[in-house]
Amino acid sequence: MTLHTHQTAPTQYVQANGIRFAYRRFGKAGGVPLVLNMHFTGTMDHWDPLITDGLAKDREVILFNNAGIASSSGEVPTTIEGMAANAAAFIKALGLTQVDVLGFSLGGLVAQTLAIDEPRLVRKLVLVGTGPRSGEGMASLTPEAQRIFGATYDEPDHLWLKVFFTDSAASQAAGRAFLQRFRLRTQDRDPEVNEKVAPAQIEALGKWGAPRENPYDYLKQLHQPTLVINGGTDVIIYTINSYLLQQHIPNAQLILYPDANHGSQYQYPDRFVKHVSDFIAEAN
Amino acid sequence: MTLHTHQTAPTQYVQANGIRFAYRRFGKAGGVPLVLNMHFTGTMDHWDPLITDGLAKDREVILFNNAGIASSSGEVPTTIEGMAANAAAFIKALGLTQVDVLGFSLGGLVAQTLAIDEPRLVRKLVLVGTGPRSGEGMASLTPEAQRIFGATYDEPDHLWLKVFFTDSAASQAAGRAFLQRFRLRTQDRDPEVNEKVAPAQIEALGKWGAPRENPYDYLKQLHQPTLVINGGTDVIIYTINSYLLQQHIPNAQLILYPDANHGSQYQYPDRFVKHVSDFIAEAN
Repeated sequence: MTLHTHQTAPTQYVQANGIRFAYRRFGKAGGVPLVLNMHFTGTMDHWDPLITDGLAKDREVILFNNAGIASSSGEVPTTIEGMAANAAAFIKALGLTQVDVLGFSLGGLVAQTLAIDEPRLVRKLVLVGTGPRSGEGMASLTPEAQRIFGATYDEPDHLWLKVFFTDSAASQAAGRAFLQRFRLRTQDRDPEVNEKVAPAQIEALGKWGAPRENPYDYLKQLHQPTLVINGGTDVIIYTINSYLLQQHIPNAQLILYPDANHGSQYQYPDRFVKHVSDFIAEAN
Repeated sequence: MTLHTHQTAPTQYVQANGIRFAYRRFGKAGGVPLVLNMHFTGTMDHWDPLITDGLAKDREVILFNNAGIASSSGEVPTTIEGMAANAAAFIKALGLTQVDVLGFSLGGLVAQTLAIDEPRLVRKLVLVGTGPRSGEGMASLTPEAQRIFGATYDEPDHLWLKVFFTDSAASQAAGRAFLQRFRLRTQDRDPEVNEKVAPAQIEALGKWGAPRENPYDYLKQLHQPTLVINGGTDVIIYTINSYLLQQHIPNAQLILYPDANHGSQYQYPDRFVKHVSDFIAEAN
C-alpha cells in the first residue's frame, strides 16, 4: 500500500456496465472504505483535500466520476436511480462487498438510492447538503439558486463562494481558503464536464423533486445508520430538507452548522471530519 | 483539589440573594467550569453520572439546586427570568467570572435567559431538550406530556422511561440502564422537592410558552457559541423547537439523535459527552 494523498493519488480506471469509471483511492487500507458521491457538475477534483485526507487517516477514501462525468466514459442517466445503479456497478467492479457511502447534494440523492437498493453493500451513510424526494423547494431550482447560477463572476470559481458559503465575512473567508485548497492538485486533474452533463443532471433532479403523495415514505426503507449534515442556512437545498431526512429515516442523526450555506463541510472541515469519523467509528 | 466524582462530591452551600444554594463541584480544575441547569422538579441527583463524570474529565462540573429546589432554601420564582437571576447570583457567589452553561428542558430556558442577561459571565451554551419562547406546543403541556405525567406507574421512577425515552426496545433498555445509574449515589442524596415546586415551575413555563408577536427575535441577543441537542422525536418539548433555536440563534450548532425522546443525552451518554466536549474545546 503506497501512502497516497488527495494530491498524489493516481487516476485509475475500472470497467462495469459498459462504462470506464475513473477513480482515485487512498488512505488507510484494511477496513471498510468510504465512497464519495459528488454534486451537480462536479468531478473528483471538486472535493476538499482537508476533508478527503482527513477522512483517509482512518480508512480508505474512494473518489470517482459517475458515468458521463469528466474522465469517466458513458452518458449521464436522466434519473437518480440510473446514477445509483452505475455507482453500485462501479463499487462491485472494484471487488468490494461492503462500503460506507457519503453523498453531497446531488450525490446525496444518489447515495440514498444506492443505500436502499443495495442494503448489503452499503453499511453506513453520510448525507451532506441534500434532501428527500419532493423536498421543500426541490421541484426546481430555488429562487436563490436561480439567481446565483444565473449571475456572472469575475472568476468562474467565485460561483462557489455564493453556492457554498453565506455572505458573512467569516463564511466568505472560509470560502476563499476552500477555493485555494481545491485547486492545489495540479497534476492529473480531471477535465471539466462536457455540455451534456448539466441538462441530464437537471432532468434527474426535476424528477426527484417533483411533488408526489406521501413523498417521504420511501425513507423508511433506508435501514443504514445515517448521518445528515448541512449548514443552518442552505439556500440551494433548503436546510429544512436535512431536518426532514432526519425525521423520516429510521436511524438518522442530524448535525447543522452555524452561519453556513450549502457547503458547510468546506467551511468547517475539521469539525466535519471529526463528526463523520466519530459517526463511522460508533457502534450503532 | 480532591478527586471527587458524581457519587462522592459533597453537597456544599453558598449564600446569595438571600438564598442558601446547595451545590456539588467536581472534575478537572483550572479551566472554565460547566454549570448544569436541571429540568422540571429535578434535583442534583437526577443528572446521569455517566454524563457528569464524563464531562468532568476535562473541566470542573458544577451541579446546583436553584432557589426553592430540594436542599436549597428560598422559593421557586414564577418566571424563568427570576430563575436566571438566581442562577447568576449563585455563580457569582462562587467567585466565578466566566462559566459555560448547560441547561436541560426547563433548565434550558433558564440557561438561554442567563446567557442573554449575563453575556460576560457565560462563555458557551449547551441547550438540551428545550425550546424558544412561544415554541411549538409550548403554550401548555403537550398532549403526550399530559398523558405521560397523568398516568400511574408501578414504580414512580418508571415515569422517566416515558418522559425521556421512546417506546422502542433499544430506547427502553437504555432507559432502564439510566434509572440504575441515577440511583447509584446513596449517601448525601437530595430530598425530593416539596409540593410548591411544580406549581411555580408550571406557572413559569406557561408564561414562557405563551404566544406573542415575533417570538424568536429575542434569540438574536444570544451571542454565545451555542450547541443545541435533542432527540429526533421529543414529545415533551417537540423536536422542531430545537430546530427553531438553531435557526434563530446567531451562532448555534444543532445535533439530533435517532430514535430518541426528551432525554436523548441519557440514551447516548458517550456520544453526548463527546459532542459537548468537542464543542467546548472548539475555537468558535
